[in-house]
Amino acid sequence: MSKVILTLTTDFGLHDSYVAEMKGSLLSINPQLVLVDVTHLVPPHDVAAGAYLLARTIPHFPNGTVHLAIVDPGVGTDRRPIAIECPVGLFVGPDNGLFALAMGELAQPADGKLLLGDQCQAVVLTKPAFWQPAVSLTFHGRDIFAPVAAGLAAGQDLSSFGDPTYSILDLPQSDQVIDDRTISGCVLWIDHFGNVILNVHQRQIAGWKGCLVEIAGQAVTGLVSSYEEATSPRVLVGSAGLLEIALYRASAARDLQVSRGVQVIVRKME
Amino acid sequence: MSKVILTLTTDFGLHDSYVAEMKGSLLSINPQLVLVDVTHLVPPHDVAAGAYLLARTIPHFPNGTVHLAIVDPGVGTDRRPIAIECPVGLFVGPDNGLFALAMGELAQPADGKLLLGDQCQAVVLTKPAFWQPAVSLTFHGRDIFAPVAAGLAAGQDLSSFGDPTYSILDLPQSDQVIDDRTISGCVLWIDHFGNVILNVHQRQIAGWKGCLVEIAGQAVTGLVSSYEEATSPRVLVGSAGLLEIALYRASAARDLQVSRGVQVIVRKME
Amino acid sequence: MSKVILTLTTDFGLHDSYVAEMKGSLLSINPQLVLVDVTHLVPPHDVAAGAYLLARTIPHFPNGTVHLAIVDPGVGTDRRPIAIECPVGLFVGPDNGLFALAMGELAQPADGKLLLGDQCQAVVLTKPAFWQPAVSLTFHGRDIFAPVAAGLAAGQDLSSFGDPTYSILDLPQSDQVIDDRTISGCVLWIDHFGNVILNVHQRQIAGWKGCLVEIAGQAVTGLVSSYEEATSPRVLVGSAGLLEIALYRASAARDLQVSRGVQVIVRKME
Repeated sequence: MSKVILTLTTDFGLHDSYVAEMKGSLLSINPQLVLVDVTHLVPPHDVAAGAYLLARTIPHFPNGTVHLAIVDPGVGTDRRPIAIECPVGLFVGPDNGLFALAMGELAQPADGKLLLGDQCQAVVLTKPAFWQPAVSLTFHGRDIFAPVAAGLAAGQDLSSFGDPTYSILDLPQSDQVIDDRTISGCVLWIDHFGNVILNVHQRQIAGWKGCLVEIAGQAVTGLVSSYEEATSPRVLVGSAGLLEIALYRASAARDLQVSRGVQVIVRKME
Repeated sequence: MSKVILTLTTDFGLHDSYVAEMKGSLLSINPQLVLVDVTHLVPPHDVAAGAYLLARTIPHFPNGTVHLAIVDPGVGTDRRPIAIECPVGLFVGPDNGLFALAMGELAQPADGKLLLGDQCQAVVLTKPAFWQPAVSLTFHGRDIFAPVAAGLAAGQDLSSFGDPTYSILDLPQSDQVIDDRTISGCVLWIDHFGNVILNVHQRQIAGWKGCLVEIAGQAVTGLVSSYEEATSPRVLVGSAGLLEIALYRASAARDLQVSRGVQVIVRKME
Repeated sequence: MSKVILTLTTDFGLHDSYVAEMKGSLLSINPQLVLVDVTHLVPPHDVAAGAYLLARTIPHFPNGTVHLAIVDPGVGTDRRPIAIECPVGLFVGPDNGLFALAMGELAQPADGKLLLGDQCQAVVLTKPAFWQPAVSLTFHGRDIFAPVAAGLAAGQDLSSFGDPTYSILDLPQSDQVIDDRTISGCVLWIDHFGNVILNVHQRQIAGWKGCLVEIAGQAVTGLVSSYEEATSPRVLVGSAGLLEIALYRASAARDLQVSRGVQVIVRKME
């Protein structure tokens, strides 16, 4: 078997043995895998957070990488288990929006679903022959998704794992261009340092000399070009290309008293 | 050296360099090891928790895997350092009950000790030639157990590491069959999602149509077959075969206000 | 490419995808790397803590190991990005004191700088040809340091990455010999178990039969030789050779109500 990278993104936490049980399931099938944890601290059941973290990770891995992602509150219901093969990588997990941001640029939104383009194939996992012999009610990550991901990484053809599908579930979108000087968005994520990351990409403000972000009744300006310049909260372009409010050696989120989901308005400054 | 999987289960936490120092000790001896963290967040000094996490992990790894487990409040005292070779895997760590649940089905309880069956061999680690040249007072995980585990994984014979022993320490057991309709048990673990895991296995309720769990003055019924059905706390069979009380997209432990060790009664329902 | 161990020490935390993005950057360049996390929970921006954790880890890894360490509040400013090759290993990260303790014994302090000895070479990273094509403002760990570390681990010559330098930044030192019976020091670190680790090495008390540590208005004596003897807080020699105050199965830090940085006096006892 070839040596393939497989990343893991889950909400399983680090106190339990769940991640290790899944890795045992993977390595039992394909001992050559190079396993890389993205994070296992996606907030429990928070599909949108998982989608964000997965999407910003993928561009930094080789294209043949398999991305196994499990944020799966619907485990055991009729939510579809899927695998997707795209130019940017292979994806395995529940069809609940978790892969929407990772594939966003390759796809067309339609009715809450993402239509997969010509370059992507996807299947609904319907072939128990590839799963663990005993499938638990509550842990499809270990019993279905891991064996499928290990098989894909070993070069098994996507089509052997199930029946083709041509769309996957999308996530609700909340950023919105109001006019050529105004974007309405929200706080997408607050990172470990307290940086406040917005769902507004630098592409959306291309050509703007500066911007002002209205957030929680406060006005924060930018763009600055390093954290050191942010002696008070300031806007800069973060490492995934998204606008970010930072405070030097401190938590901008705490200083501004904002949390995830808070609405923002980004205005063009001359 | 062959490519062998070695799992690590400790109470070392993730803030220190202790886990990495142990991995350096392992990889310096055997660079081909495939290291898999089970968890390093076993509650400090909590041997019973480590035993539970280790026991549920082992079945998902190949039989030749080496399981290094260190929850070792007695480090530096006369507690015995041991290594065990069994059909389900190899184990290295302190003899304080940590391996009791992993080996429970292979062994006969007797006087607080587990007698190892014919299929298992064990040694007390008495040969400093295999240890790090300088053994610290407080970190035998790095200085004794890791080098022994790395040597075992490299194919070194178990008997070379010390003197044979035929029993290991057991853990106190608290589940108890009262009659064919009633089991007395306790909360064994509360997982990252707040699922309340009982020390009662589905084998013990084989043939029961349903059950009622008395817990903290409340009655919880089951069995349901997915988390989604648990719109109020309900019982289901979790992914290690143990009874588990769950609440959909929420923490059953917080809802029921229970913590580890709480006593329960499981009653048969028609 | 040869199979080289690369350790990672950062303050990135475990909730974000930052560590994984850096690993993707590393593995994209050098898929043979054996990645070992030291910790990603260095307190944010705390260079001294990172230096301590790195220094105690290095002796346990083979000499050819590459140590990538990123605690980098000055990212995007004129702080120097560096790589160092020494007998004990190779180091890549910001020049802000992070490598001072790891290299302390090989170097001479001078004016807040460490002069590197004959056995060490260092370069300031000035060759963008080795970096990721797009370098973000805020994440040089992923975009500069990781590609350089991956290249070094692949055998690329140190001199190809930049211009030579002969000193690196030191950390402020706070331990001080007062006389042959008294050492003034501080609490360097409090570990996951609540052990209170002092910046006083057993070498500094060589030949002493015992010692008394004055800390937060309390007197703690030692040396004991196992945690089990510390039924009240006692001093012992910890696993990095530093004096440590411990309390059996409990947190000495909580019992003594001390935190990092607290001053101590260590006195010789007959």
